[in-house]
Amino acid sequence: MSDAYARRREALRTQLRERGLDALLVVDLLNIRYLTGFTGSNAALVVHAADSPGEEKHTVFCTDGRYLTQAQQQVPDLDRVIDRASAIALVRQVASQPAKHRRTGYESHHVTVEDLDGLADAAAGVELVRAPGMIEKLRIVKDDTEVEALRMACAAADRALADLIEHGGLRPGRTEREVARELEDRMLANGATKPAFESIVATGAHSAIPHHRPTDAVLQSGDFVKMDFGALVDGYHSDMTRTVVLGRPQDWQTEIYELVAASQAAGRAALKVGADVKDVDNAAREVIERAGRGEEFLHGLGHGVGLQIHEAPSLSKLGDGTLSAGMAVTVEPGVYLAGKGGVRIEDTLVVREAGPELLTLTTKQLMVV
Amino acid sequence: MSDAYARRREALRTQLRERGLDALLVVDLLNIRYLTGFTGSNAALVVHAADSPGEEKHTVFCTDGRYLTQAQQQVPDLDRVIDRASAIALVRQVASQPAKHRRTGYESHHVTVEDLDGLADAAAGVELVRAPGMIEKLRIVKDDTEVEALRMACAAADRALADLIEHGGLRPGRTEREVARELEDRMLANGATKPAFESIVATGAHSAIPHHRPTDAVLQSGDFVKMDFGALVDGYHSDMTRTVVLGRPQDWQTEIYELVAASQAAGRAALKVGADVKDVDNAAREVIERAGRGEEFLHGLGHGVGLQIHEAPSLSKLGDGTLSAGMAVTVEPGVYLAGKGGVRIEDTLVVREAGPELLTLTTKQLMVV
Repeated sequence: MSDAYARRREALRTQLRERGLDALLVVDLLNIRYLTGFTGSNAALVVHAADSPGEEKHTVFCTDGRYLTQAQQQVPDLDRVIDRASAIALVRQVASQPAKHRRTGYESHHVTVEDLDGLADAAAGVELVRAPGMIEKLRIVKDDTEVEALRMACAAADRALADLIEHGGLRPGRTEREVARELEDRMLANGATKPAFESIVATGAHSAIPHHRPTDAVLQSGDFVKMDFGALVDGYHSDMTRTVVLGRPQDWQTEIYELVAASQAAGRAALKVGADVKDVDNAAREVIERAGRGEEFLHGLGHGVGLQIHEAPSLSKLGDGTLSAGMAVTVEPGVYLAGKGGVRIEDTLVVREAGPELLTLTTKQLMVV
Repeated sequence: MSDAYARRREALRTQLRERGLDALLVVDLLNIRYLTGFTGSNAALVVHAADSPGEEKHTVFCTDGRYLTQAQQQVPDLDRVIDRASAIALVRQVASQPAKHRRTGYESHHVTVEDLDGLADAAAGVELVRAPGMIEKLRIVKDDTEVEALRMACAAADRALADLIEHGGLRPGRTEREVARELEDRMLANGATKPAFESIVATGAHSAIPHHRPTDAVLQSGDFVKMDFGALVDGYHSDMTRTVVLGRPQDWQTEIYELVAASQAAGRAALKVGADVKDVDNAAREVIERAGRGEEFLHGLGHGVGLQIHEAPSLSKLGDGTLSAGMAVTVEPGVYLAGKGGVRIEDTLVVREAGPELLTLTTKQLMVV
């Protein structure tokens, strides 16, 4: 593991050199976790451009006394400073060696206007340079360690749904809330640290609300039950939606289910290295538009997923950029008939040269429960 | 309810006038919730100093299309703009009436260096003035509506613990994780929207770790079981810790329990209007120090609680300021014997002229389960 972090820091150094920065002050906790593995709630990190793997003399980590032992365990390979004022403490240290840190970047998309005062005071003769988004840019493409965590997170969700169904947890008479809670319990039992987000369980007409929150509404025979849920494992989020029918499906249900399934398949097929994210969205969207239901597909096709449940890239009309191998994304078209019911089918996948790798393995056939 | 929000906006206006600001741009979602009741994930608000209750012509709320209906319901009394770029959209509107907004404050402790660029561009001829912490300052003192939400949140936690014990949920053979999950389920059953934070259940030697996360460790006869948990109701957090003994307490357990209980009582008794927060911490701390266990009380005495689980004031050596009527705080001393076991007892209370009002009502007698 500690090799993976060292490799990520080295990739950041390449970016720093390209931008003529001597070092980068990292303050965002997810970015610090990405670069070091540290999971505490207070930290800062300076990555120095002149260091190299195994020779990280000027790359320094800081946290406070509560995390002394944890930092030794999680960040054994870096110099550690213990100071409650983590970012300011590191900037002071940087300023004490001005020749090595003439141009030090900082995460200007995370530092507030007020916090910049404190950093600038501490920086003294060192120039603090805005450097937004450098680590987020690296995070878009997942390495093997990250894909493994995503795979485990997806497996926890897959297994939870299978267990829920096998044990009769999806049946008329239960409430949305009860089903959501059991699904979450079963994710924990299957290795999740916690749910990746507030689970959606939406029955009957509620299934037509894209982001419905579970209520005491009771599942009834004939209902669509839409479940959008995920697991957190090692800090990585899975994201999956399945829609099932309780009892025999009616024609309109089969029709929109098949339509969404075809759209989702088209979206997955469009996940090619080099594809424009707008085209991926469109590939799935035009299947639904051709059926005259474009107005009932109310949101974008998907989003990147990793240390955050929503991260770059955005697969939507408003998205920007093209796909690269190693990006982890969701594909989740939906059709929502207000007051009646809706269907969404969502997978988490990794973009690969040979075609997308599916991480959520639950069937996408219409399950009649 | 909508009266409470109008009163809070009026209190903010008084502050604005005192600081010579024409208006304040609010971007922090909790602050927006505090001032309007809106609970969505994208919003901005401009509060104008020249408005008055019932005459809020220049106070404007903005959110995006997803929240159109929700905004109508939650913010019926303000002008609403629907625009995805909420803060920038409002600053543009402000800039279109420069004479009314010469000096417009913004939340410089929430706006990042990067985001300020976009706001400054949109502001054109209007001066954007740093105005950090104005709403947080109001939020320290809770109004009746807020205390009522805190009361319900505390009641959900109290009832959950009572139900857990009554139904035999605390017994040798169960794991920390199982107990935590049942406690959380029972909070939901008692009206919580969700747990206020990740519940702590720590058995045996784990109880000596102040912020232990539940594991598969099994509760054993003779163990201290420390439970730190809370409920979220209407956006407000309760926070409570109780430590029980499974079976007959040993002498060392009774000794440190009584010590922590005495310290906690002293801390509560020190919650007086006008008291320095350092003195409140000290009142509880010196009870433990006199017993020669000062080194085993590893953290501050307590913290404010409300829309955030940790907010001002801080009752600690490093805290600043004095108590006012209406502040909601926790009082939570602990003694931790590494490798052996620990005790923490925590209540949520409201500072009142007549003495603190206790919101968490579970007994603080040593419960033998």
